[in-house]
Parts: sequence; structure tokens; C-alpha cells
Amino acid sequence: MPSNIIDRKIIDTLARRAAGSDTEGGNPRLKEIVHRLTHDLMVAIDDLDISMDEFWTGVAYFAAAGKSDELGLIAPGLAVEHFLDLRLDEAERLAGIGGGTQRTIEGPLYVAGAPLEKGEARLDDGSDAGEVLFMEGRVTGSDGKPVAGAIVDVWHANTKGNYSHFDPSQVPFNLRRRIETDADGIYRFRSIMPSGYGCPPGSQSRLLFESLGRHAERPAHIHFFVSAPGYRKLTTQINIDGDAYLHTDFAFGTRDGLIPNVTRVADAAEVHARGLNAPFALIGFDFALVPDVEGAVTTEINRPRAAA
Amino acid sequence: MPSNIIDRKIIDTLARRAAGSDTEGGNPRLKEIVHRLTHDLMVAIDDLDISMDEFWTGVAYFAAAGKSDELGLIAPGLAVEHFLDLRLDEAERLAGIGGGTQRTIEGPLYVAGAPLEKGEARLDDGSDAGEVLFMEGRVTGSDGKPVAGAIVDVWHANTKGNYSHFDPSQVPFNLRRRIETDADGIYRFRSIMPSGYGCPPGSQSRLLFESLGRHAERPAHIHFFVSAPGYRKLTTQINIDGDAYLHTDFAFGTRDGLIPNVTRVADAAEVHARGLNAPFALIGFDFALVPDVEGAVTTEINRPRAAA
Repeated sequence: MPSNIIDRKIIDTLARRAAGSDTEGGNPRLKEIVHRLTHDLMVAIDDLDISMDEFWTGVAYFAAAGKSDELGLIAPGLAVEHFLDLRLDEAERLAGIGGGTQRTIEGPLYVAGAPLEKGEARLDDGSDAGEVLFMEGRVTGSDGKPVAGAIVDVWHANTKGNYSHFDPSQVPFNLRRRIETDADGIYRFRSIMPSGYGCPPGSQSRLLFESLGRHAERPAHIHFFVSAPGYRKLTTQINIDGDAYLHTDFAFGTRDGLIPNVTRVADAAEVHARGLNAPFALIGFDFALVPDVEGAVTTEINRPRAAA
Repeated sequence: MPSNIIDRKIIDTLARRAAGSDTEGGNPRLKEIVHRLTHDLMVAIDDLDISMDEFWTGVAYFAAAGKSDELGLIAPGLAVEHFLDLRLDEAERLAGIGGGTQRTIEGPLYVAGAPLEKGEARLDDGSDAGEVLFMEGRVTGSDGKPVAGAIVDVWHANTKGNYSHFDPSQVPFNLRRRIETDADGIYRFRSIMPSGYGCPPGSQSRLLFESLGRHAERPAHIHFFVSAPGYRKLTTQINIDGDAYLHTDFAFGTRDGLIPNVTRVADAAEVHARGLNAPFALIGFDFALVPDVEGAVTTEINRPRAAA
């Protein structure tokens, strides 16, 4: 079937009718967005000669991905979640806001309401015999001064790459804590070294990325929300250096400023001093928060999130 | 937040990475389509300054609509299913194919495997006390000659606008039959006059259309697949003339050539002759099929369909 056979004026008229652009009532912003997306989809169908079979295959694909709650994997996997970060970065730069730790994607696996602890926490329940990880650092303002009472909300996968809540084999809030920084802005936690998350075997998301000739794996990483009164909320992650997928994250979350050194400690005295009997890993990472800026675009994102 | 702040080259690079455009392996056609749609979405986000909150609201909306099996309502409701018909019309016109009955959208409520009857059928099970409808006509080729043995696969809603299979209160295949035309190409059926379908109360589809300032109703209509060996399959509908929504179908299915006259018959003798005791409605409608054309784009659409 030939491509580009429909007059663009017909497409615009149809998209305007679809979006209710010329009717009274309804939500003007929704009309604007629906008009644009419907218009663009029709033009793409016409330009690429997307067949009815291809179109309905796509519709069935999105229905299946909706049913399996995978749109939150497909959005980052198609780089759109990262793209939203790039836009927020650029909007801040244009507004003269900067100097804090880089943001990166939240992903779909946060669970609200993790236990809150002061200064330090242990994240794992001891049942996963992974490499022990100690991570610590300071939350500061972008001026470098410590921020006491900041909340470091941390979550990560287990050694199989699975997240508690979504993985019913783990206890609630395993590898999830909120840690309040001490008077010096310090947070510390003990946990286990995560493995990278991969789209589940047989999932719609994995099917898509593999059908595109891509893989469906993330490098090992640790998620953070860092917030404090008077500062802009930071959504970020650190990646575990050396991971095979470090620079090919299917979710486009890796950023150069978010790959701290990992120190492996095998010295018997240090191992013993930590109450361990095997080598462990150490990561130091400081978070710099940007002070609130009146009138600036918010970094508080409202999206549906799990809660337990 | 400002709009149009990301360099289009950055968008193209990101969309190419998302689509696997520069990697080996995968499905080239899928890469082409995913690249285009991802690119267009990113440009739309940047042009319209679609916020993270708006984006995630949209993602959650599509997840909910996938879960409730409503993407098959949203696609016609945003005129995309009709747009695909316009493209097929135009492709046929460019190929010199024409002369048959107009096509229109299939919709999402067909169920394969309805009982097959010869020449005539009764579609309703007698439990719905609606106006009795007799419909009949001839299937011909576009040359006007009768086509014997054509299959008229007909389905429509009941007086509440609901379809059997999707409405568990109806018996299987109520208001659904396949009728084989007789030696003169004639099909006939008795049924009840349908009411228009509306998106279910509280549904995601109704929410969308009403939020756009539109309604979510179809005029009363009757669906048909008409097929015969040697002819191109016809997917169409007739609308019931006089319906309040006749020219504002939320699904963009109404076409001027598909609104036959409805004759109301109240004459006692005629009512009696039909074995009835109340006035009834008569619709005559002939279907003209286009002969197969070698190498032409097919009119057989593969989309997921219910089967019972």
C-alpha cells in the first residue's frame, strides 16, 4: 500500500474532531495534548504506511503491557523517562538553577512508607547471602554545607535483581529504608550488593526490547529520593561500577556523575571490626541538594506509586 | 517550564537508541515504527511542555484502559480506526479498485463462530421485547450480478445497546448470525431494532471522551462482514436513520452511503402476515462486493477478536 496518501488537512480536521478541539466544554489542556498526539499518530501511520494488521498488533501489545503493569518499564526503556529528566535539567539550567547532584529516573518500583531510621540503617533482613555493602555519605546543600534532618529514601534490588513488594518472596520493605541524616548531614547503611534488574522473562517489555535487537537489563544500581525542607527534592540513583551493563542500561538511567568507586575490603582486621567474616564492599557518595527557588518548576513528581 | 528546549538532534539520537536503530538484530520494521513514534512523542512533549505529572497521568490512563480492554474503544473514538479506513479507500482508489459498498469500522465487539444459516435467520432469542426488525437484501458483485453463497456475518446490540458475549445476560451468539445468500444472492433476517452502544458508565473510554467535551455514544447500527470466494471482504455497518447520534458517532463510523431508509409497517394485514401483533420495521440493503484484484492490498484484517 502506498505511503503519504492522505491530505494533511483531512488529518488535522479528524484529529480536531477526535480531540473535541472545536466543541465547548472539556479540559482545554487535554484537548491540546490529545489533538497533537492523535494528529502525529495519523501522520506517522500515513508516512510509514502502517497497516491495519500492524496497528492492531500495536494496540494488542499495549493492552497486554497495561494488563501486566509494564508501561512503567516501557516508558524508561524507550528513553522517554530519561528524556523528561533532560527537559527538567535544561529548564533548570535556563532558570539559572544548578550545582546539585545529577538526577536520574525513578523507575516504577518505588514503594512509599519504608521504615524511617535516624542516621543509619540496615536494609537487608540477613536472608540473602550476597556481598555485604556499606554505603555512607553526607547530604549537603549545593554550597557544600551539611544538611541535618534530610531524608534519604533508598531502595534497591536483591542479589537476584528483584525488589521487595513486587517480589513476594521478600519480607515487606526489604532493601527499602528512609534514613534521616544526623547533625553532620551523614547517612549510613548496611545492605547487600544488588544485582541489576532485568525485565521479567516472557514479559511484554522484554519482548519489545529484544524484538528491537536490544537487551532488557539494567546495571546494578541503588535508588534514592533525597529531600529536606528548603531544598528541591532529588530523584537519583547510583550505579555499581564494573557492571557489564553499566553503559547500556535498557532504561537509560546511567549518568557519568552517578558511578561512585566501589572499594572492596578483604583485610581481616577490617572485616572483623565490621563484625563480618568475609570481604565486603564500601561506597561513599555525597548528595548535594539545590535550595528551593521560588517560582521554579517543581521536582516533586506526582505519579502513581505503590504503597504498603 | 519553557517549551521547545531540547535540540532535535538529541531527540533523534535518543529515539534511535530506544528503537535499536543502530544495533544489529531485531525486526527492522518494528525499529522503524518505534523510532518514529518515540521521536514524535518526545517532540510533542517538548513542544507542548508536557510535564512529568501529565506524562505519568497518561501512562496510568493507558494502563487502566488496557486492563479494562478499552483500547479497542479508544482507537475508534480518536478516529484512528476510521482513518485506517480512509487510507484503505484511498489506496483502492489509486489502484483503480472501486464500485462496491462503502466500508466502515469493525469495532471491538465481533465474536467469531456465530451459527451459519442458509438464506435467512432469526437473530434474537425472543427475550428482548424491542421493535421487530426485518432486514433483507441482495449481495451482488460490483457489476450488479447476484452472488450466491456469500456469507453475511451480522452482529448488533440489543435494545440496551449491549452485545452478547460481552454482556453475560444474553445467550451466546444472541443477535449474531452468519447467513449464506441463496441462489439469487438474497439474505434475510428477523431481529429486534438495536439501540446505540455507549461507552460503559464509569469506563476509561467514557472518561476520556467526556473530558474532551464530547459524548461517548454511537447511533444504533448493525455490523456486517460480507465475503464470498473471488471477492474482496467487506467490513461495514448500516446506521439506523433518525438516531439522535446519527451524525456524531463517537467512533466516527457513520458514512452517508450506509444509512438506509427504515420503513415502519403498522398495517394490520401486513403485521398479521408476518405473524406479529405489533408494528414492525423494514430495512432493505444490498451489498456490492468488489472482485478480487491480484496484488491489491488486502481487506482481510488480522486483529485479535473474541471467539466463543
